[in-house]
Amino acid sequence: MFIHMKELQYHAKPAKPDPIFAKKLQEVLGGQYGEISVMMQYLFQGWNCRADQKYRDMLLDIGTEEIGHVEMLSTMIAQLLDGAPVDQAEEAAKDPVIAAALGGMNPQHVIVSGLGATATDSVGYPWNSRYITSSGNLLADFRANLNAESQGRLQVVRLYEMTTDPGIRQMLSFLIARDTMHQNQWMAAIAEMESMEGTIVPASFPRELELQEVSHQFMNFSQGEESAEGRWAKGPTMDDQGKFEYVANPQPMGEKPMLTPAPDAMHSRPGALPKLANEGMKSGKGLL
Amino acid sequence: MFIHMKELQYHAKPAKPDPIFAKKLQEVLGGQYGEISVMMQYLFQGWNCRADQKYRDMLLDIGTEEIGHVEMLSTMIAQLLDGAPVDQAEEAAKDPVIAAALGGMNPQHVIVSGLGATATDSVGYPWNSRYITSSGNLLADFRANLNAESQGRLQVVRLYEMTTDPGIRQMLSFLIARDTMHQNQWMAAIAEMESMEGTIVPASFPRELELQEVSHQFMNFSQGEESAEGRWAKGPTMDDQGKFEYVANPQPMGEKPMLTPAPDAMHSRPGALPKLANEGMKSGKGLL
Amino acid sequence: MFIHMKELQYHAKPAKPDPIFAKKLQEVLGGQYGEISVMMQYLFQGWNCRADQKYRDMLLDIGTEEIGHVEMLSTMIAQLLDGAPVDQAEEAAKDPVIAAALGGMNPQHVIVSGLGATATDSVGYPWNSRYITSSGNLLADFRANLNAESQGRLQVVRLYEMTTDPGIRQMLSFLIARDTMHQNQWMAAIAEMESMEGTIVPASFPRELELQEVSHQFMNFSQGEESAEGRWAKGPTMDDQGKFEYVANPQPMGEKPMLTPAPDAMHSRPGALPKLANEGMKSGKGLL
Amino acid sequence: MFIHMKELQYHAKPAKPDPIFAKKLQEVLGGQYGEISVMMQYLFQGWNCRADQKYRDMLLDIGTEEIGHVEMLSTMIAQLLDGAPVDQAEEAAKDPVIAAALGGMNPQHVIVSGLGATATDSVGYPWNSRYITSSGNLLADFRANLNAESQGRLQVVRLYEMTTDPGIRQMLSFLIARDTMHQNQWMAAIAEMESMEGTIVPASFPRELELQEVSHQFMNFSQGEESAEGRWAKGPTMDDQGKFEYVANPQPMGEKPMLTPAPDAMHSRPGALPKLANEGMKSGKGLL
Amino acid sequence: MFIHMKELQYHAKPAKPDPIFAKKLQEVLGGQYGEISVMMQYLFQGWNCRADQKYRDMLLDIGTEEIGHVEMLSTMIAQLLDGAPVDQAEEAAKDPVIAAALGGMNPQHVIVSGLGATATDSVGYPWNSRYITSSGNLLADFRANLNAESQGRLQVVRLYEMTTDPGIRQMLSFLIARDTMHQNQWMAAIAEMESMEGTIVPASFPRELELQEVSHQFMNFSQGEESAEGRWAKGPTMDDQGKFEYVANPQPMGEKPMLTPAPDAMHSRPGALPKLANEGMKSGKGLL
Amino acid sequence: MFIHMKELQYHAKPAKPDPIFAKKLQEVLGGQYGEISVMMQYLFQGWNCRADQKYRDMLLDIGTEEIGHVEMLSTMIAQLLDGAPVDQAEEAAKDPVIAAALGGMNPQHVIVSGLGATATDSVGYPWNSRYITSSGNLLADFRANLNAESQGRLQVVRLYEMTTDPGIRQMLSFLIARDTMHQNQWMAAIAEMESMEGTIVPASFPRELELQEVSHQFMNFSQGEESAEGRWAKGPTMDDQGKFEYVANPQPMGEKPMLTPAPDAMHSRPGALPKLANEGMKSGKGLL
Repeated sequence: MFIHMKELQYHAKPAKPDPIFAKKLQEVLGGQYGEISVMMQYLFQGWNCRADQKYRDMLLDIGTEEIGHVEMLSTMIAQLLDGAPVDQAEEAAKDPVIAAALGGMNPQHVIVSGLGATATDSVGYPWNSRYITSSGNLLADFRANLNAESQGRLQVVRLYEMTTDPGIRQMLSFLIARDTMHQNQWMAAIAEMESMEGTIVPASFPRELELQEVSHQFMNFSQGEESAEGRWAKGPTMDDQGKFEYVANPQPMGEKPMLTPAPDAMHSRPGALPKLANEGMKSGKGLL
Repeated sequence: MFIHMKELQYHAKPAKPDPIFAKKLQEVLGGQYGEISVMMQYLFQGWNCRADQKYRDMLLDIGTEEIGHVEMLSTMIAQLLDGAPVDQAEEAAKDPVIAAALGGMNPQHVIVSGLGATATDSVGYPWNSRYITSSGNLLADFRANLNAESQGRLQVVRLYEMTTDPGIRQMLSFLIARDTMHQNQWMAAIAEMESMEGTIVPASFPRELELQEVSHQFMNFSQGEESAEGRWAKGPTMDDQGKFEYVANPQPMGEKPMLTPAPDAMHSRPGALPKLANEGMKSGKGLL
Repeated sequence: MFIHMKELQYHAKPAKPDPIFAKKLQEVLGGQYGEISVMMQYLFQGWNCRADQKYRDMLLDIGTEEIGHVEMLSTMIAQLLDGAPVDQAEEAAKDPVIAAALGGMNPQHVIVSGLGATATDSVGYPWNSRYITSSGNLLADFRANLNAESQGRLQVVRLYEMTTDPGIRQMLSFLIARDTMHQNQWMAAIAEMESMEGTIVPASFPRELELQEVSHQFMNFSQGEESAEGRWAKGPTMDDQGKFEYVANPQPMGEKPMLTPAPDAMHSRPGALPKLANEGMKSGKGLL
Repeated sequence: MFIHMKELQYHAKPAKPDPIFAKKLQEVLGGQYGEISVMMQYLFQGWNCRADQKYRDMLLDIGTEEIGHVEMLSTMIAQLLDGAPVDQAEEAAKDPVIAAALGGMNPQHVIVSGLGATATDSVGYPWNSRYITSSGNLLADFRANLNAESQGRLQVVRLYEMTTDPGIRQMLSFLIARDTMHQNQWMAAIAEMESMEGTIVPASFPRELELQEVSHQFMNFSQGEESAEGRWAKGPTMDDQGKFEYVANPQPMGEKPMLTPAPDAMHSRPGALPKLANEGMKSGKGLL
Repeated sequence: MFIHMKELQYHAKPAKPDPIFAKKLQEVLGGQYGEISVMMQYLFQGWNCRADQKYRDMLLDIGTEEIGHVEMLSTMIAQLLDGAPVDQAEEAAKDPVIAAALGGMNPQHVIVSGLGATATDSVGYPWNSRYITSSGNLLADFRANLNAESQGRLQVVRLYEMTTDPGIRQMLSFLIARDTMHQNQWMAAIAEMESMEGTIVPASFPRELELQEVSHQFMNFSQGEESAEGRWAKGPTMDDQGKFEYVANPQPMGEKPMLTPAPDAMHSRPGALPKLANEGMKSGKGLL
Repeated sequence: MFIHMKELQYHAKPAKPDPIFAKKLQEVLGGQYGEISVMMQYLFQGWNCRADQKYRDMLLDIGTEEIGHVEMLSTMIAQLLDGAPVDQAEEAAKDPVIAAALGGMNPQHVIVSGLGATATDSVGYPWNSRYITSSGNLLADFRANLNAESQGRLQVVRLYEMTTDPGIRQMLSFLIARDTMHQNQWMAAIAEMESMEGTIVPASFPRELELQEVSHQFMNFSQGEESAEGRWAKGPTMDDQGKFEYVANPQPMGEKPMLTPAPDAMHSRPGALPKLANEGMKSGKGLL
């Protein structure tokens, strides 16, 4: 069960309206790596958690915090839209700066939401739940979380570069700091899991059942060998079970596939004569 | 530019058809973490790569390999569909095992693709490009890649548990092994990047511009403190810049938001009197 | 079966082209609450109608009218696109007003539809059938319809404020009037249904089977009690079965959930040892 | 800002697992009218609210409650999946009841979420934010909310009919009761708004600007006049501004549309001769 | 403007209910190549038509017919759902045939639409307007139409094979016949267009501006030359402007791409030092 | 299995950056008829091919070529984004040309992909696999392919008209030429198939089972007979089995549908009394 406090977790007030930036800021609200994504990802990981209570609690703590971040961003966006040129008399449209503003806004911010935030990204594409990950395997999911916080902080930093409004930057500096914490948090949680079960997800699959001869090979599927220069191509593997091997000219290990012809009922054999495969209780014209 | 070799990278032939498993196997072909996702993710990261050529080459090597994995899975699925009961005479439908098979299949495998694989997941949802990540920041993207290979290997292992067909298991044992390599590969690439620029993405944002007082705080947004037990709540942070701090009762740092009333042209102020905000060249009834 | 008449239901001719407004007008053609939505919603409600013929007839009457509204909007949009700057020589792009026009247009109006309307909204997102509602319960669906006509009329009014083109306003004044009628229509239909079966949907579920102690409680899930001021928090309930009760501090009525650990075959128990859960007819390496 | 309490709002424990019902129950979690929809709809309406604080508070109260309903449903679904046949040895698949169970489950409940709830509906389609409505106009949005609670309660009642598990029914009886309250709540809020501004949304558009001659006409777009029988076809209109008028044979009021031919740069005029419209700084072959 | 006639264009009544077939039949109602697709495709092509009136009229004639096909399929599906086991007492679920039926149905046919058709395909995926094509170029669009009728007739034929219900087959025999006509129709329309402007779309682009040296080459991007055997690899080209040429070993004609490093503001240069690119009116901590 | 060559198939270098054109060019990369669509369509048709090896080989040859086209377009887009105004200081935003550029760009090109191409179309909508067609019937699929190459070449030609950059035009002149070849190729392949099995897809359905009386009728579903003028309305049909017949006033051949009332468990019969249809093992309040 959840409780709401009316105060925001941190300040979310721009120095002045900016409807074009409002459109851009939507990316970190309702985009692939926006705050709705992490909120829903952590909540579902928490609710589905079948492991020790400390993991469930931790996941729901951070998920609950993220609801508050969605709130902050929505509030900010509504205020950025305050001065939007919504009744565009002809004169206004002739001023190129206003014209550009009108062209650069998300029209749904006026027509659909009436100057409110929407649960969409910076091109107006709706948030959807295929963005989130909750697999039940904690190490796998903590890696998903570290990825989300890395992409998320990167996007917020880019938005920070795209404005000089002190109010917006103030809020972003808070979000960037929390993303710093959350990258730290997931790295710590990953380290805890890896110390228990090793680095390969899932750890519980017997390694002898995989085709181990290709478990440590880097395969060079191109002409030229620049890719031989990286850490991934030589030295001990990260699972401490062997050495990276560089395969300069990988060869097929399988055969040319040959599918059987399609059965009659598919009606896709080239040149096949007319034939009903499923005659049933055949009777009359158009009425089998 | 790309070249095709007719042989598969590895064997992809089931011992016998199984149209219900064909439906399930679609998950790792066209699902969120299926082979199409990693193929497209690595190719786009490679094509967009603005860093050293060895990274571009490495990304395109693995992306090219993944096209071949999509090919293997598609081939396997087509063969699993070979024996599907496509012309279901009444008698057949009365056999409960066949009835269950009919109920458990993806009907599009018959009606739409004519016993072929589709670029969709195990519930028939189409693959879409919001599944992939290519941010331009290599450390961020390598984390996305490690995540993808972790979720991917987990799903393949679960599918391995869901069948005992030796042909399917043979192919899966190859894919599991390659995912082992690819987890190793991305961990190695991450280690190389982190040794250059530290662990927080993006490293190039000046840390003094973030609100550092909250950069290392774990905030307990719930009653009870089970979440204090983890590595994420105490000890040095993973970026080596401080210590984790556990905040048992986080307080709002912001204020209650108060939005300005909507302008007339939005027509959403409760109780507002009828009024046209944008009169323009007003003239007659219904014809302003 | 349907018949087409070549004349439009009402005039749909702009005074002059305006490709940016064409983009915006798409919202009420192919958006969540656009004319395609009401057309498809009423037609499906009509075709699925299992009640008295007068309801089916009425639903199909209005659904058929809406096809004509889709036609009017498409026609209007095609004409608004007439003057679009489609071959943008360098010079043109240097004129800021044309540049803004180019930036503000939907590029698919040129590249994809060749200056024609598309079945998408004002950000180019395709219409999809999850927008519509047809539940089989008439009272529920009439409420969906009243909602659709309320949101729809609001959006058309906002678009009316966003242009002063007399031809566009003429067409919008017709659509606004029809939405006035359609709000009246659904309110009337709702009143007819409510007089038969009461106000709670569905009326046919026995009230004694619901947990009636919470059927009339407003729960205040926040600090502060501004929400106690509304009609929803005191006085008789709208179903005439009790009084609104304001619960200032709602308490959990359930327990802390505790899920069972994941079974082996899920490969998600933290720290589990390697183990194959489904051994099948075990044989050799990678080939179970 | 939000706080989490570890207890559920109400009990959410099935008497026994039932993976097929888990799939069905997803509809009211992540479907068009599921709990995620109302949670997000009310929260966004609250955050975007530009009216009196009591409305904002009320919206956020109910939005916060709904987060707890999402939590209850997720918890229930995870437990329904407890006994799912995840490692399907051959023998198991031959038992027709188990086979049917396997066929009727959502395969992603095993492969993707590891026996956890997902933010999708009963056919596995992801929740997306085009499901929600937040227009800024309170009367319009309260009607959206009444619609959502009507469709939602109907679906929960249908699910109640589809199981006899006492634990599931216990939880559903709670949700049904809350939906009773919420229908009451929105009807009360609507009544409050309508008493201020009348029944037509938006009230602030001057009625004389709409084409009033069609504002009260029911148009019979079909042969036969069953649709003349309803409340919507006769008597005073619901906005108290006139009488319903039944138009038995509606006539077109517009003209046959005639579009101008496509410009050269569109390359879509039938039979047009080859011509480059935008010659630019023409030079050589393939290199203009 | 459109008018509705209450009679169906053709019979649409099954001999007996079959909820599993109802699910499958959805494919040709709301799938990629279902009747909604052709209805919307032809209507939009007609409304957007800028060519001779006979094309517009023809397009709207067939588009109007297709609305009636959507009506027939919806009606059929509602009746197939008549006997669905909607209140599944425990006993029922133990009968394997009923259990299979329950597993094979689309659960939304009960929970969401109340035994009515939905505008979705056979896996429950919603129809969306990215399925349709309306480019403004008639020859291109007539090819899209021929494709749609070819895929559509193929799917209906496959469904015909999947049932022996005489009522369903009767309706399908009508739809198959109309698809025969419509394939004929589009082939005739294509022939008319090609006789005016040749076979390459768009005909109006000057051929000397394309890189003509590759305009007739078949490139063999694989090892082995089976692909040399077809009509596409030898003989005169179909545009009568040359001969097919088989290129056994196609060589790259471009260069290795080399992208410039990312600018500072992107924060994606590996190893870059911390730096704010857009300093703006720099002032204090977290508050630039 | 696939191999990568580092050189591009053809040049892909703009004369100068142009971030607005980058947005538009996305259409032919990730749009409905972009290069990703044809790449995936041909590859899946090849992998699923159950016919003669020459077809499989030919399909995979062209599919492999298209991967290289995706590569060229991605490379071009990344370079067009080189000069994008990403750190928009206030001054910049005041220059109307830069302001227009900022408004006209896809914001995700900066925030999400860091100046890289994305797998989306020109309005930022993600590519999805419902764009592609692979039915197993070669004649049907070759028509899908001819359609794709016709729409594709048309879009590329329109983009050619929208720029005068010689580098972009050079690349487009190559793509246009390849589309010329591919239209020729599919027409040749269609001719080969039609010579084997006739023109109606699928050829293998017995014609006597369709309702042949409507197989050659053009039905005029509108007032006025302009549509009688085309090739589709008179003369021999294209399948050489009859003559086109023009039906000026098509009449319904079916009846008025009449659905049975909804069963109790659906809770949608108007005015029904409260009743639980599925009583199960009834016991107490809210706990059946």
